[in-house]
Amino acid sequence: MNTLIIGDIVGRVGRNILKEKLKEIIEENKINLVIANAENAAGGNGITRKVADELFEMGISALTMGNHVWDQKEIFNFIDDEKRIIRPANYLPNTPGRGSSLLNINNIKIGIINLQGTVFMQCNKNPFLSADDEVKALREHTNIILVDFHAEATSEKIALGHYLDGKVSCVYGTHTHVQTADEKILSGGTGFITDVGMTGPYDSVLGMDKEKIIKKFTSSIPVKFDIAKGPAQINGLVVNIDENTGKCIDIYRINKNYI
Amino acid sequence: MNTLIIGDIVGRVGRNILKEKLKEIIEENKINLVIANAENAAGGNGITRKVADELFEMGISALTMGNHVWDQKEIFNFIDDEKRIIRPANYLPNTPGRGSSLLNINNIKIGIINLQGTVFMQCNKNPFLSADDEVKALREHTNIILVDFHAEATSEKIALGHYLDGKVSCVYGTHTHVQTADEKILSGGTGFITDVGMTGPYDSVLGMDKEKIIKKFTSSIPVKFDIAKGPAQINGLVVNIDENTGKCIDIYRINKNYI
Amino acid sequence: MNTLIIGDIVGRVGRNILKEKLKEIIEENKINLVIANAENAAGGNGITRKVADELFEMGISALTMGNHVWDQKEIFNFIDDEKRIIRPANYLPNTPGRGSSLLNINNIKIGIINLQGTVFMQCNKNPFLSADDEVKALREHTNIILVDFHAEATSEKIALGHYLDGKVSCVYGTHTHVQTADEKILSGGTGFITDVGMTGPYDSVLGMDKEKIIKKFTSSIPVKFDIAKGPAQINGLVVNIDENTGKCIDIYRINKNYI
Amino acid sequence: MNTLIIGDIVGRVGRNILKEKLKEIIEENKINLVIANAENAAGGNGITRKVADELFEMGISALTMGNHVWDQKEIFNFIDDEKRIIRPANYLPNTPGRGSSLLNINNIKIGIINLQGTVFMQCNKNPFLSADDEVKALREHTNIILVDFHAEATSEKIALGHYLDGKVSCVYGTHTHVQTADEKILSGGTGFITDVGMTGPYDSVLGMDKEKIIKKFTSSIPVKFDIAKGPAQINGLVVNIDENTGKCIDIYRINKNYI
Ligand SMILES: [Fe+2]
Ligand SMILES: [Fe+2]
Ligand SMILES: [Fe+2]
Ligand SMILES: [Fe+2]
Ligand SMILES: [Fe+2]
Ligand SMILES: [Fe+2]
Ligand SMILES: [Fe+2]
Ligand SMILES: [Fe+2]
Repeated sequence: MNTLIIGDIVGRVGRNILKEKLKEIIEENKINLVIANAENAAGGNGITRKVADELFEMGISALTMGNHVWDQKEIFNFIDDEKRIIRPANYLPNTPGRGSSLLNINNIKIGIINLQGTVFMQCNKNPFLSADDEVKALREHTNIILVDFHAEATSEKIALGHYLDGKVSCVYGTHTHVQTADEKILSGGTGFITDVGMTGPYDSVLGMDKEKIIKKFTSSIPVKFDIAKGPAQINGLVVNIDENTGKCIDIYRINKNYI
Repeated sequence: MNTLIIGDIVGRVGRNILKEKLKEIIEENKINLVIANAENAAGGNGITRKVADELFEMGISALTMGNHVWDQKEIFNFIDDEKRIIRPANYLPNTPGRGSSLLNINNIKIGIINLQGTVFMQCNKNPFLSADDEVKALREHTNIILVDFHAEATSEKIALGHYLDGKVSCVYGTHTHVQTADEKILSGGTGFITDVGMTGPYDSVLGMDKEKIIKKFTSSIPVKFDIAKGPAQINGLVVNIDENTGKCIDIYRINKNYI
Repeated sequence: MNTLIIGDIVGRVGRNILKEKLKEIIEENKINLVIANAENAAGGNGITRKVADELFEMGISALTMGNHVWDQKEIFNFIDDEKRIIRPANYLPNTPGRGSSLLNINNIKIGIINLQGTVFMQCNKNPFLSADDEVKALREHTNIILVDFHAEATSEKIALGHYLDGKVSCVYGTHTHVQTADEKILSGGTGFITDVGMTGPYDSVLGMDKEKIIKKFTSSIPVKFDIAKGPAQINGLVVNIDENTGKCIDIYRINKNYI
Repeated sequence: MNTLIIGDIVGRVGRNILKEKLKEIIEENKINLVIANAENAAGGNGITRKVADELFEMGISALTMGNHVWDQKEIFNFIDDEKRIIRPANYLPNTPGRGSSLLNINNIKIGIINLQGTVFMQCNKNPFLSADDEVKALREHTNIILVDFHAEATSEKIALGHYLDGKVSCVYGTHTHVQTADEKILSGGTGFITDVGMTGPYDSVLGMDKEKIIKKFTSSIPVKFDIAKGPAQINGLVVNIDENTGKCIDIYRINKNYI
């Protein structure tokens, strides 16, 4: 089965380009399942009920999150009841929402795990040990497991890939908003990429207006960021998984700039 | 003119694969100039006189560095006299070595600048403002200027690319050891990539033995890293620059895994 | 002359306790000049015109700031014209406001410098080198110079104290909101303390409601902080300076809990 | 009972001043139990068998540690068998040593817990949640419990004090090497101080040679630190605990500079 993973969707620009192009990408790549990172889907910050529904209606089956998960306060109203939204599993106890989810797509069970890095990021539970717990629980139901590791440092991301090699179908990074060119199948059969990239404004800094970010880096004054305007890009990853073994048998990047 | 930029060379594995394959890559891509980031060239940490000479003899014309520049103490003996080794320009005053260099290759003058990021890294001088100074000085001699921005955060790297757009031939990132897939020519004619990647052990975490790095992330005990063994990869970038205008007219990645 | 330095004033609780007790402290300690750190004076975040005037009316002659300086946007309206408000001198070029000021109190010229640390804080200009520039400029007018080093790390603060020893009258730390017990006169005659402490709610975490801060540290959910209620504390430092030499001849802490 | 807690002992200078003065301090303050933070006791970095024995022979009953615990490799040989050495309890699973210990001093049972902060430090397990586990286990045996919170940020340290208020006898901070002047008894009867301070070279930066540290902060070159020479200081805390209730009934600082 072919899974399409979409990198961090940024704002309306990101959602609109998907509305326009997702069907085409699905057909071209014979995609059976689409999931996406949606931590920036609502105006660059977090997600709302309306934005989530907009994405589900496009045919996206599940949304993983990251450090921006709580940016829109209304998420606390629906995250506990929405099985298709998954926040980092290594958050501290008593956090709303779930860190993994088991989907049933055309009678195939697929486990999805979200984890957040700790290097250069807030210190939560150790993501490697949390991954062990989540993988163990999901493998009682399926061996098709996808792991979104939302992290900054390349070392932490690649290390988790090797750590979970042979235990899950794919470990893919998100958060840096820049797609990496290191997609591969590890020796144990796990697909891997350091970062899937970003789906949103092409001519920008991580989706944000570039002049604002430059001002931030060249002054000692706080700067309010705006989402950039102009043409869009879609960054994604196609992972072909053997339904019996859960192994990754093919992996390639989607990198489209609609300029 | 075609410039080949080689991403962080890691240890003997990185040097050996270049010794074997560099000539071939130069020919295939009609390369006129080769430069490399060499901050990890000596056993993963810094550079020695012997390692530098080994790289120069392969046909590499200049070596940029980064946060590992001082790892081998003997560098203090030769960095002031070695015009072809360039350390970050935004280091504090009274630091040995130089932050930019003007090469003369076949009667073409080429300026090379090295800068280090400040996000998630040591705080030195502001790299944007240091870039202004270096670019201004070099442009009195040439409009062909290459900038190695050795930095962690994608936001800082992309912002510097846009900041220098139109003023230099190419801004390329190093340091994360993972090649990104976002090479492009910015609107002002400056080539850009967030990270060129790493030249060294393929089956590794940033060139290091993966079991050691996993141990680091799953325990509270310090772990001594070793360079990984096994097959090698070469990560590079080819930048075709118009010799009259200094603009980038073509940019593409070299991503070879000799597995 | 006896200078009273007041540690970070937090919100209305901090301002009110000063309104009530400052006169008494001034009399008891024969104070000739009062200055304060006011980066948290307006509701815990930054300063307004009204709050600044309230503090000046109490008899405070100058206000130094820190990382919270821009929290209230209206400061941009008056900081350039208000000689008595001093923001960190090592901010990047083109930042509004001034990093040092020369006061004239009863025909005595007093220089005040504000600097911000770089360890565990935003990377601005190097505070040691910026201190050199500011000290040099002020010493053309006076040898009575007070330096508020708004910084997190004890190492950076103590190092600056020794670095400026003999060149200024006193280097005192702010920002951690906890008074340290290491006040001393360094060998060159410069008074020093790592942190003056905080003037605000006593039963709190750095002035903030303790339950909110505990919630922040025990969950992965963002928490909105509130200023704590209840009794107040005044933290300050008295520095007796020889008016001819600018040397510190006595230094002691003010640590009052009105519980 | 009066417990004397000694702040981070730095190198031979720190050990020697204790050898000379500890007996005197014990007598003057009618001390029943002495414990110390020893993470810097061996040449500034970690602890050896010999140094530990030297400290035990002086009459120190237990040694807590911190981020420097593993600096001397020989500690792995004896930490598992040495009940009197306690490393941070919130280290990840499978770490050698113990995070708490139950001492029996003159038929009084005393629990000691060591924890490490996560703000501006390595990310281990959450110290608040680890504290809950350790306190629960120890309280089955005693209600006299001392907690060394080895942490950088004042907010995290004060928050833990309030979090454990009423559950332990004292929460005291270590690590910054600067004694704070905020010792108090919290409303639930728990003694608290943000940092006990440092026992070692007086004229120094955190025990280290000040010129070296200044060089570090004013250059971009790595600097090897040396322990400072010259006169010594002892920083400590006396906590008087009601043996029946485990409540703190008196708390005061020891701050002696032998200059
Ligand atoms: Fe994102
Ligand atoms: Fe993110
Ligand atoms: Fe590197
Ligand atoms: Fe690097
Ligand atoms: Fe403050
Ligand atoms: Fe502050
Ligand atoms: Fe220490
Ligand atoms: Fe420490």
